Amino acid sequence: MYIVIMAGGSGTRFWPASRESLPKQFLNIVGDRAMIVETYERIRPLAPDDHIILVIGQQHLAETERLFAGRAVRILAEPAGRNTAPCIGLAAKYVEHLGGKDPIVIVPADHYIARPEVFRSGLVQAAQAAARGAIVTLGIIPTRSETGYGYIERAAEPEENNLYRVRTFVEKPNPEMAADYLARGSYFWNAGIFVATPRTLLAEFTSYMPSFARGLEKLRAAFDTTEFPEALQALYGNTEAISFDYAIMEKTTQPVYVVPSECGWSDVGSWYSLYEVRKEHDRDDLGNIGEGDTLLLDSKDSFVVSRGKRFLAVLGLTNVLVVDTEDALLVADLNKSQEVKRIVERLKESASKDLL
Amino acid sequence: MYIVIMAGGSGTRFWPASRESLPKQFLNIVGDRAMIVETYERIRPLAPDDHIILVIGQQHLAETERLFAGRAVRILAEPAGRNTAPCIGLAAKYVEHLGGKDPIVIVPADHYIARPEVFRSGLVQAAQAAARGAIVTLGIIPTRSETGYGYIERAAEPEENNLYRVRTFVEKPNPEMAADYLARGSYFWNAGIFVATPRTLLAEFTSYMPSFARGLEKLRAAFDTTEFPEALQALYGNTEAISFDYAIMEKTTQPVYVVPSECGWSDVGSWYSLYEVRKEHDRDDLGNIGEGDTLLLDSKDSFVVSRGKRFLAVLGLTNVLVVDTEDALLVADLNKSQEVKRIVERLKESASKDLL
Repeated sequence: MYIVIMAGGSGTRFWPASRESLPKQFLNIVGDRAMIVETYERIRPLAPDDHIILVIGQQHLAETERLFAGRAVRILAEPAGRNTAPCIGLAAKYVEHLGGKDPIVIVPADHYIARPEVFRSGLVQAAQAAARGAIVTLGIIPTRSETGYGYIERAAEPEENNLYRVRTFVEKPNPEMAADYLARGSYFWNAGIFVATPRTLLAEFTSYMPSFARGLEKLRAAFDTTEFPEALQALYGNTEAISFDYAIMEKTTQPVYVVPSECGWSDVGSWYSLYEVRKEHDRDDLGNIGEGDTLLLDSKDSFVVSRGKRFLAVLGLTNVLVVDTEDALLVADLNKSQEVKRIVERLKESASKDLL
Repeated sequence: MYIVIMAGGSGTRFWPASRESLPKQFLNIVGDRAMIVETYERIRPLAPDDHIILVIGQQHLAETERLFAGRAVRILAEPAGRNTAPCIGLAAKYVEHLGGKDPIVIVPADHYIARPEVFRSGLVQAAQAAARGAIVTLGIIPTRSETGYGYIERAAEPEENNLYRVRTFVEKPNPEMAADYLARGSYFWNAGIFVATPRTLLAEFTSYMPSFARGLEKLRAAFDTTEFPEALQALYGNTEAISFDYAIMEKTTQPVYVVPSECGWSDVGSWYSLYEVRKEHDRDDLGNIGEGDTLLLDSKDSFVVSRGKRFLAVLGLTNVLVVDTEDALLVADLNKSQEVKRIVERLKESASKDLL
C-alpha cells in the first residue's frame, strides 16, 4: 500500500511553542521526536519508504529534508495550504504517476496514537476493503462525550467482521447529542483517516471537483521534474481551500465503509488535550506534568513547559498551564487552553508579527 | 538633622526580580527609580546631601556610587550584614566623628510612602523631640488588621500635640489581637523608623551592647581613612547580628516617644503588598496590573511583570502573579506571594545558586 502523511497545516493551538514557521507537526509534542517523524515511525511497518509520501508546506521543505535525511520517502511541497481535498487529490495523482494501483492510506501528521499496533491492524483491514474499490475510513471508538469532533454513524449490521457501511457523516454535535452518540455505540469519531485506491479517489475528484481534476491531469507530466513547483503553483492558484470531508465524503454516492478502532487516538488539538495524552505516563502524584527546568510547590493538576532554557517556578496554583519559550510566555487556565487562538488573533492585529 | 538610610538588607521576597546581587532596595519596584533613590529623594528636603548617610553592603558599593554619582551623600559599606543594631550604632558613631550633634533620622531604604509630605512633617516633629534627648519613633496609624508587623502602644494622653510616650513595643500579633489593636486606636505599626541624637544612641549602645560600643570607639579614628574597611571588618567579625528593636528598644529605660503618622506607609514586603501599593494608580478596570509587554485576556486581579523582554500572555486566570526575568520565571497565586521565599530556599539546597 501507499501512505500519504498530510503535514501542510499551520495551526495556532500550541502557541507559543508552535509558530507559523514551526507548526505542531514539526514539534516534539508528545515524544522526543517531531510529530511528523512519530507518525512516520508508527506507519512505516506498513509500506516501504518509497511508498510513503509527505505532503508539506513549501516553507517546511528544508526542515522536512533534514528530519528525513537518508530516507527514501517522497516529499510533495505545496506552495500554499488548500486544506485536505487538494492535498489528497495531489497525492492520489502522484501515486498514479508512480504507477501505483494499491490503496493509499491517508493520515494527518499531527495526531497521537497510544496503541500503534491496533492502529496498523485497522489500516490493514481498511486497505483490504479499499482494494475492492471502496473508500474506507477508520472510525475511532469514542471514550467520552466529546463535542469537538465530527462523528461517523455506521450501519446496524457489519458487512464482515469489524467492517461496516457508513450511514452518515455527522458534524460536531451539541452536548446532548454527543452523550447520545456515546451511549448508542454506533457512532465513531472522524479522525480524518481515509483509505482508497488512486483510481477510486481520482474518480471522486472528477465527479465533485472536475476543474481541479483536470488541473491534476495537466500537472501529471511535471511530477519529479524541475517544472513541478511552478506547475503546482499555477494549479493551486486556481484552487479553493476545501476539506476532503466537505468536498467529497459528504457528496459521494460510492459505498463508504468504516473500520472501528480502539487505537487510543487523540488529535492533540490543544494543550489540555496534550496534558490528557501525556498524563498517564508523565504526571506526578499531584497530577502535575513538568517539562524542562521546573519547580512546582503546593500546585496540582498543572502542565508546565519550559522550552526557553529558563528556570520556571510555580507556587500555589491548580489547573494552570505555563509554556515558556525564548521570546514568548503563556500562562493560562489549563481548561481554557483551546482559547489560545484568541491570543494569536490579537498578535495578528498588533505589530508583533514575529511572535506568530 | 542627619539622615541614615539603611540599605544593607538582602531579602528574597521579590524573587525572581530581586537577587542576592540585586536586592529590593536597588530595584525599581514602585516607581521608575531604585527604592534607595526613591527613599533619598523623599527625604532630601530635610537635610543637605552631606548629612545623608547610606549604609550599604560592600557588594553594592559600585552600584550605589553609580546611582548617587555627583551627590555629596556619604556611604558606609558594611563587610557583612549584622541586622539593624550594628548598622545604627555605626552610623551614630560616624555622625559623632563628623561633629554632628543634631538628631539622626534612621529610615529603611526599601519602604514605600504614599504621602511624602506627611511623612516628612512627622519626622520634623520627631526630630524636635529627639533634640531634647529622647528616642522617638514614627508610628504608622494602621489601616487594616495586620498580623505581619510589630506594633507600638502609646500612652493614653499626649505629651504635646501628636506626640506620645510609648507604653510598649509589641511583637507581631495573632489575628484577634490585631483586630483589637486596630479597634483601640492606640496601637501603631512599627515601621523601624527612629530619631535620636548620636549622643542618646551611643549611650544606649554603651548600656546594652557595651563590647560593640567599645569597638565603635576604637573604630572612630579610622573613619574616612583607607584603614576603615579592614577596621570595620575586624569589628563586625566580632559582632552578632541583632535588630535595634531587640537589642536596644525593648531594653531601654530612657523615655521613648511616638509620633503617629498617616503617611501611607508600606514595607512592600511581598509581591502582594506591592500590588496593593500600586493598584490605586496602575491597575485597569479588571484589577490587573501589567508591566512590560503583556496581554491579559479574561483575567482579573492579577499582577503580571515582564522584565525579561519577552511577550507575556495570560489567559483566563484570577489572582495570579507572573514575574518573568531573563533567567527565571515565577507563576504564583498572588495571595501566596509571601511564600516565594520557599522557592529561594529550594534553590539554595539545589545546584542552581546562580538563580539566587
